[in-house]
Amino acid sequence: MRIAAPQAPAEPLRGITLAVVGVGLIGGSVAAALRQQGVAARVLGVESNPETLRQARALGLIDAAASVQEAAAQANVIVLAVPVGAMIEVLRAIGTSLRPQTLVTDVGSTKTDVVKAAEQALGERAAQFVPGHPIAGSEASGPQAAHAALFDQRTVVLTPMAQNPMALRQRVVHLWQAMGAHVVQMSPEAHDAVLASVSHLPHLLAAAYMAQVAASPDADLRLDLAGSSFRDVTRVAASSPRMWRDIFLANRQAVLAELHGLKALLTQAETLLEQGDGAALQAFLETAASARRLWGETHG
Amino acid sequence: MRIAAPQAPAEPLRGITLAVVGVGLIGGSVAAALRQQGVAARVLGVESNPETLRQARALGLIDAAASVQEAAAQANVIVLAVPVGAMIEVLRAIGTSLRPQTLVTDVGSTKTDVVKAAEQALGERAAQFVPGHPIAGSEASGPQAAHAALFDQRTVVLTPMAQNPMALRQRVVHLWQAMGAHVVQMSPEAHDAVLASVSHLPHLLAAAYMAQVAASPDADLRLDLAGSSFRDVTRVAASSPRMWRDIFLANRQAVLAELHGLKALLTQAETLLEQGDGAALQAFLETAASARRLWGETHG
Repeated sequence: MRIAAPQAPAEPLRGITLAVVGVGLIGGSVAAALRQQGVAARVLGVESNPETLRQARALGLIDAAASVQEAAAQANVIVLAVPVGAMIEVLRAIGTSLRPQTLVTDVGSTKTDVVKAAEQALGERAAQFVPGHPIAGSEASGPQAAHAALFDQRTVVLTPMAQNPMALRQRVVHLWQAMGAHVVQMSPEAHDAVLASVSHLPHLLAAAYMAQVAASPDADLRLDLAGSSFRDVTRVAASSPRMWRDIFLANRQAVLAELHGLKALLTQAETLLEQGDGAALQAFLETAASARRLWGETHG
Repeated sequence: MRIAAPQAPAEPLRGITLAVVGVGLIGGSVAAALRQQGVAARVLGVESNPETLRQARALGLIDAAASVQEAAAQANVIVLAVPVGAMIEVLRAIGTSLRPQTLVTDVGSTKTDVVKAAEQALGERAAQFVPGHPIAGSEASGPQAAHAALFDQRTVVLTPMAQNPMALRQRVVHLWQAMGAHVVQMSPEAHDAVLASVSHLPHLLAAAYMAQVAASPDADLRLDLAGSSFRDVTRVAASSPRMWRDIFLANRQAVLAELHGLKALLTQAETLLEQGDGAALQAFLETAASARRLWGETHG
């Protein structure tokens, strides 16, 4: 993980035309944040869902609706904020209309597949595409949940491609810094392995556990007596099923590896319980509690 | 689950001497809440940890330290707030000194074992013991985390014993209602089965997942990129290892049954991922998302 050093941008990041493809929570928040910071003077929204588009316009997140081709022809910066499963299609649509000076980036939760899709769809123009992923979000979705402060103090991972010119990488760094984010850089593979562990697995876990409780014969009673531990552990189970289906499929090897590791630990806990081994069980819990408390002190 | 109907208490719940055995988060909060409501005029604290006792006194949660025997001889109401593994020992110590008019209740997270311990330790006087469990808590522990509002709008489960006189059950109901809680009643077995699902399993899950991340070779990088999904899913992994060891052991059959069920669902998710079955994976996630959203609307 390299921390990107601040550096003066080659071209002033003010008054640009921004195109956001997918104006949901993340896309809408990018639009709001870059407009608030004076970076974006005009925001075009590309959105296939008419109701989402209407809301984004009503909320003032975007100035006008546009097709992918119009966005590619007019924008200085294009941010792709569609589910990762839809990325290849959008990149293909952009490819034919992209101007040479336009910067393209994305906010997809997986990166190996997005890099591959960009190379396939954009060919030589893939040099203009700098892949990224803001570690920010919410179980809420849609433009109504979008806000300009979503990325403030959050980390954004960039996974630049070998062909990206340094100046272009720096522009993306500055874009995210303007939104209040910290930027780190790593390989797409490293990103996907880490995120499988600290983001994708907890989402899968929360969904499986929530499905278990909901499917129980006395689900109503259980849900009535569920308290704060249940609330926190299951919160992300409310996240968009379509978006997460795409993420799990796009990163399935890494997610499967983490799931395998977790099942082994659950089996270990199961054995300790079956044996009634209080000392070992407490040691197991101590490891987790110490690590979580330390993380809480430094990452809140 | 029966909702206890409000009913005038046989003896006014004002100005009593309260003894709290274990003055940590829950015991300290009971003391603070009953004092604030004017129910407790004097609070005795029984606590084996000298530092905890000092803090509870410094914070004004208790008026004086007492032995279990002194508490049993002086208090109108005794609330047992020690880890469930320590309950039998405390009940035995109380048994020999308990006055016939004294009410004893507890806040233990498991109930079948506590009922059994009370019957063993108190004999005929078990009629004076009304077991209970407030569904409230925090990953924080100790008297410094205690506060009078901890039980406000929370649910308290009572699992009365056949020999408890109705008037005594009602006194416990009124005690909790005075602290702002909703009271429900059920059998100890039903309580333990439900709580294994909605409280004990999420704690075990959070601990196992946290232990997995902490033990990974690149733990520092993972923890640096962990965001809000990680934070929420792991929050309860910071809970007291000793307390949770006791809970898991006390309720291990029910916890093992839930763990078994969860592992089956994780294996199902694993199979869907391995097969790359997007439609089934999305359906799996939809079930969880719908249930969690519905719960969030009604239970916040």
